[in-house]
Amino acid sequence: MKISAIESGEVSSSPRKGMKRGLSIMDFILRVFAAVCTLASALSMGTAKETMPFATRFFRFRAVFHDLPMFVFFVTTNSIVCGYLVLSLVLSFFNIVRTIAMKSRILLVFLDTVMFGLVTSAASAAAAIVYVAHYGNPNANWFPFCQQYNYFCGRISGSLIGSFIAVVVFIMLILMSGISISRN
Amino acid sequence: MKISAIESGEVSSSPRKGMKRGLSIMDFILRVFAAVCTLASALSMGTAKETMPFATRFFRFRAVFHDLPMFVFFVTTNSIVCGYLVLSLVLSFFNIVRTIAMKSRILLVFLDTVMFGLVTSAASAAAAIVYVAHYGNPNANWFPFCQQYNYFCGRISGSLIGSFIAVVVFIMLILMSGISISRN
Repeated sequence: MKISAIESGEVSSSPRKGMKRGLSIMDFILRVFAAVCTLASALSMGTAKETMPFATRFFRFRAVFHDLPMFVFFVTTNSIVCGYLVLSLVLSFFNIVRTIAMKSRILLVFLDTVMFGLVTSAASAAAAIVYVAHYGNPNANWFPFCQQYNYFCGRISGSLIGSFIAVVVFIMLILMSGISISRN
Repeated sequence: MKISAIESGEVSSSPRKGMKRGLSIMDFILRVFAAVCTLASALSMGTAKETMPFATRFFRFRAVFHDLPMFVFFVTTNSIVCGYLVLSLVLSFFNIVRTIAMKSRILLVFLDTVMFGLVTSAASAAAAIVYVAHYGNPNANWFPFCQQYNYFCGRISGSLIGSFIAVVVFIMLILMSGISISRN
């Protein structure tokens, strides 16, 4: 009787444990992927630079990312989030090994949420400025400087992609953590 | 022996149930608070309008929120999130009544995360534009139109507050849901 109870317990907990381990492994892979995306974003924006082929005696016409504070925020935030994702791999690996760990998962949900907010905020602020840079705004008399700095604008627009991919990955990570916690 | 086991089970589950109910009630209150904040943000931005006391024959100098697409996005998103928060009160109330409900909590975590992303995105995009409106950008030759439209700028800056409060509330909601799910 006792043995059969233990056996039935094993039968019901084994697929659950397997599913949790599967979720943890996917969590690990998604973190690596998001870290690469945010690193690419930070590098792409941080190295964007264009100098016009002409110059007056007093001016050099040049566009660099630190001309606009939102782009500095974008590069800083993506670097921080990338660093966090790499560090969180330790906790994520711990979750693969110890499927019943609970506190580490709640800590990850909280930190993921904060980082998700940070990266969303940086990507949106940069996207708003990139939009104005492309299309300008006649109501505010803001000139679209992308008409001159084509290469620079291509780089800053492209750098948004990695960041927005990271945003989607974070939503998946939080959802997966929620499911994983509920399976305990 | 059996009775004592049941009793000890009751003793350990009762404070846990009480804690979960407490978290659910706080969840409900925070949702009402965030709904009011996002509604205030949407109204404050949506009704911001200023007309200059002078006009030429062909132009009227006027600033309205739909001059800039990010402000339209801000009003729309805050309205959607406010609507979602009001609707989510039903699920939140259900969680107060049925403390062991699990699927409804995971659904809430997922939807909260998506809405958190939306409201963060809208608040950041609007904040980026408000920053440029206040300080301009000499590198991009963008003129700070707040030097003319003082009242309008006060309104749009103020409207950001409610939205950023909602951002913080969402982080708390997601964390509380995580803790609540783990206590099952």
